Amino acid sequence: MKNKFIKKLLLSLIMCTVIALLNTNLSEAKTMENKNINEQLIFEAGDKLPNDYFIGDAFVKMLVNNQNYDCQVYNVTFEPGARNSWHKHSIGQILLVTNGEGYYQEKGKPAQHLHVGDVVEISANVEHWHGATANSKFIHIGITPKVSENKTEWLEPVSDEEYSKLK
Amino acid sequence: MKNKFIKKLLLSLIMCTVIALLNTNLSEAKTMENKNINEQLIFEAGDKLPNDYFIGDAFVKMLVNNQNYDCQVYNVTFEPGARNSWHKHSIGQILLVTNGEGYYQEKGKPAQHLHVGDVVEISANVEHWHGATANSKFIHIGITPKVSENKTEWLEPVSDEEYSKLK
Repeated sequence: MKNKFIKKLLLSLIMCTVIALLNTNLSEAKTMENKNINEQLIFEAGDKLPNDYFIGDAFVKMLVNNQNYDCQVYNVTFEPGARNSWHKHSIGQILLVTNGEGYYQEKGKPAQHLHVGDVVEISANVEHWHGATANSKFIHIGITPKVSENKTEWLEPVSDEEYSKLK
Repeated sequence: MKNKFIKKLLLSLIMCTVIALLNTNLSEAKTMENKNINEQLIFEAGDKLPNDYFIGDAFVKMLVNNQNYDCQVYNVTFEPGARNSWHKHSIGQILLVTNGEGYYQEKGKPAQHLHVGDVVEISANVEHWHGATANSKFIHIGITPKVSENKTEWLEPVSDEEYSKLK
């Protein structure tokens, strides 16, 4: 009887340990899953961008549009796989990556893999595109300086064929 | 003997439950603590700002300083209780709150309590200050438009007496 009791006690202790370990592992799995996507968003996603110059689901929220500053500030959210067409700005544009992972590519150069904290200074008249990776959401603040003289020219889309080659 | 065994088994199960609950509560406590401060920082804090125009520990990291844009973008981090002196900009300034909690106050008006996602458009020549609350770090992106003609004038500090009255 004593042996039986010890066996049952051990079994209870093992169960106890398993439950505690499962609890810890579940927390760790959740942390891993959120490593690249911060679920606490800073700004609202805003309105869906029309698919004229965007493939997939992308959203924009205008944050500042003040003529006295001659500068626009906005939050852009790309769902996984979403990206804009090749385009260029006559003065340039600034991107501040705040969440997820994405790409920035200039014509004739390899695509850059972008992460939280990356800052992109897009020079005047440089043909480029930006968007999310295939498996991650991508959020950046965009700043258009000298709005009154900064014109955007939209070009061809980034085809599924060229996008799917990116790693 | 059977009763004794059942007692011990119950004791083990109670221990098991207590451990599982403790584990869960610790995770929840950690989540609560991080509610207002996101520990995954977007940008580096950068260099400590001299205490000429700042009380407490504040840091700045220049992100974009490009003459072609005539626009500066920088990340400012205030430790709890840190704030800048009253000052004004001849064109104005934009603040985008990305972490923690802080204040923005214009002369003659009550202080505004700022949270993640708040956007402040500071108009030309408006006397103001900004900084952290007493108990929270405060991080904002700052944008200075029209840098070439946007002059800053520093005025008196925000005294401990006026700061301590804020809620």
